[in-house]
Amino acid sequence: MKQGFGKLTSFQDAKELLYTLVKETDNEAIPLENALHRVLAEDIIASIDVPHFRKAAMDGYAVNAVTTFGASNTHPKVLQKNKYIEIVTGAPMPQKMDAVVMVEYTEKYDDTLRCSKAVTPGENVIPVGSDITKGTVLLQKGSQLNPRSIGVLASQRIKKIRVKKKPVIAYFSTGNEILSLNEKLTEGKIFDINSFTIENALLELRCETINLGIVKDEKEAIKKKILEGTEKADFVLLSGGSSLGKRDYIVESVQDLGEVLVHGIAVKPGKPTLIGKVNNKLVLGLPGYPTSALSNFYILVVPLIERMVSRTSKKNTITAPLSKKIVSTIGRYEFLAVKIENKKAVPVQKGSSAITTLAEADGFIEIDENTEVLNKGENVDITLF
Amino acid sequence: MKQGFGKLTSFQDAKELLYTLVKETDNEAIPLENALHRVLAEDIIASIDVPHFRKAAMDGYAVNAVTTFGASNTHPKVLQKNKYIEIVTGAPMPQKMDAVVMVEYTEKYDDTLRCSKAVTPGENVIPVGSDITKGTVLLQKGSQLNPRSIGVLASQRIKKIRVKKKPVIAYFSTGNEILSLNEKLTEGKIFDINSFTIENALLELRCETINLGIVKDEKEAIKKKILEGTEKADFVLLSGGSSLGKRDYIVESVQDLGEVLVHGIAVKPGKPTLIGKVNNKLVLGLPGYPTSALSNFYILVVPLIERMVSRTSKKNTITAPLSKKIVSTIGRYEFLAVKIENKKAVPVQKGSSAITTLAEADGFIEIDENTEVLNKGENVDITLF
Repeated sequence: MKQGFGKLTSFQDAKELLYTLVKETDNEAIPLENALHRVLAEDIIASIDVPHFRKAAMDGYAVNAVTTFGASNTHPKVLQKNKYIEIVTGAPMPQKMDAVVMVEYTEKYDDTLRCSKAVTPGENVIPVGSDITKGTVLLQKGSQLNPRSIGVLASQRIKKIRVKKKPVIAYFSTGNEILSLNEKLTEGKIFDINSFTIENALLELRCETINLGIVKDEKEAIKKKILEGTEKADFVLLSGGSSLGKRDYIVESVQDLGEVLVHGIAVKPGKPTLIGKVNNKLVLGLPGYPTSALSNFYILVVPLIERMVSRTSKKNTITAPLSKKIVSTIGRYEFLAVKIENKKAVPVQKGSSAITTLAEADGFIEIDENTEVLNKGENVDITLF
Repeated sequence: MKQGFGKLTSFQDAKELLYTLVKETDNEAIPLENALHRVLAEDIIASIDVPHFRKAAMDGYAVNAVTTFGASNTHPKVLQKNKYIEIVTGAPMPQKMDAVVMVEYTEKYDDTLRCSKAVTPGENVIPVGSDITKGTVLLQKGSQLNPRSIGVLASQRIKKIRVKKKPVIAYFSTGNEILSLNEKLTEGKIFDINSFTIENALLELRCETINLGIVKDEKEAIKKKILEGTEKADFVLLSGGSSLGKRDYIVESVQDLGEVLVHGIAVKPGKPTLIGKVNNKLVLGLPGYPTSALSNFYILVVPLIERMVSRTSKKNTITAPLSKKIVSTIGRYEFLAVKIENKKAVPVQKGSSAITTLAEADGFIEIDENTEVLNKGENVDITLF
């Protein structure tokens, strides 16, 4: 039995190292119809004023404000034909009119309009460019497009946009004990959970995924998969086999093909993690335990993929008080799953081997290496899934 | 000019009415591979214990606990060959062993193991079913599947799952002033924003969308689109033309084809909304203004679609103090877009005609009809987009 990982790499160092091992993806132009959740590759500058014409803000009559001056309930002004034009909310203002008298303050008598309230120039008129002014930066490079920002792009008649290409990630699970869902359960075996959780987590990040299946603990088979992954994808993710003992085939395989840069990270859970480089591409070996694999995914892979598409928009984080005291380990960066109950952050702790831990959680908190205790009631920042 | 909507329908009444006009979608069986964000149509009962064998929780030696009783640093117990078996974390426990002594408390001498700590039966052993116990309800009908819950399903070797079918929604924009992005901007016209915002908001809800394009203010054309929508979709959404004045073609069209049930809702923004029934299907006319259309979408259509798929999982809501005092209108249910800045809810108010309002927001708060003032610093519930 090997005697441990030696010196563990700190979470921050591992994260920074990962950034150096991937490249920003290229840009591509796509139709606005397909833009949902993609990341803008350039700033969008408004080329059209919105509205690009003066609009009525109310139902009523477009007038020249000066003709209403002095009008009141007791002394209405009477406007002759051509001095007023009926208008509905949102309609373009007639060229020579500069205000709208709300219908409530008017009465029609044949061709004349009695106006019981004076309006000032511009009153009840939406000016040109009040929503969007030509030349302003509407959306910034790095923002992830949502239904609302796509609407803003449509207002500018932007039919194609330049976005970052989706990162392409190859993935496989390793281990003699891992069964595909087409196999029968026998003693000591478990079904492949990680390829489902990781593939779907990648899809939520708008990545393209290449599922390379399950590989047994055989060095040549593992090496073949790693090579296949580096050829087809921007980087290779795998789970299992990065621990010690029988499961160190990943270390040897990466060493044979390239370079092992990190083996063992000071995170909890998720220590047995490997960072390597093969064919100048990142190979990231996650732990085999489903919860450990996913927790490393959330704290290491998510920021990495955000970096690859230069995504700047923030993730959903909220703040809530802890429901109970938490004791953490000095020297280990900890990922702690929590659920939100009665506006409190309730830790979900069933151990890193429990696959149900994360399914019950709403998000997670991160506890740095130097924090030993978080007290009950203390406010913590929660990243929502 | 018509003189108003008459009596407005309250938000709650409108919402309840909408529920009566749609049906729950059918169930369908889909492969687990395609399950992301779908809604479970049935409870999932565990059929496999996880783990389904006893596992070592630590690296060390599997032993019979009784053989270590009395062991201490000063008085180690010496175990002969066959009384201990080397084991790594996660490996199946040998049948006759019931505990694991951590490697730190052992020393090997030839064939014997010196054990400097006593263990109790079950110590450092993960029991069968400790994560998932056969027979328990793992996931409930109505929960929306995420990467983590899909992992739980994989652990149970569930290759196909029964989910609610996606609602199918037909949509069109109406108005002579509405241009497609292929047309040139001229005085008084605006580009079709709503079909982009609404279609993408529907996609985020995992609906199937049928985009019926843009229809001019012509009754026969509108009627044709409504009929096409009711034939192809579970319900029809449209925007524009549900106001007064020139834009009442939607009211007349729905009246000709079926029944207008509500015209005008006491919400702000979003009053000019129509609820009708054609071919026994809901026709929901949203306001033409992009922000009003979307705000009604979020407060009326989102709950409706959640109801159609019997979705129970909560949306992301957070609580934060208001950055400033808000005055609302008694008798109107108000949708107020907010952004989160320095953990405060900052209202984003540029008027319902502004398309940028929602693009800048992180979510919204709802202010009921009977609330006139929300004070600065008051905690409000925010539904995140």
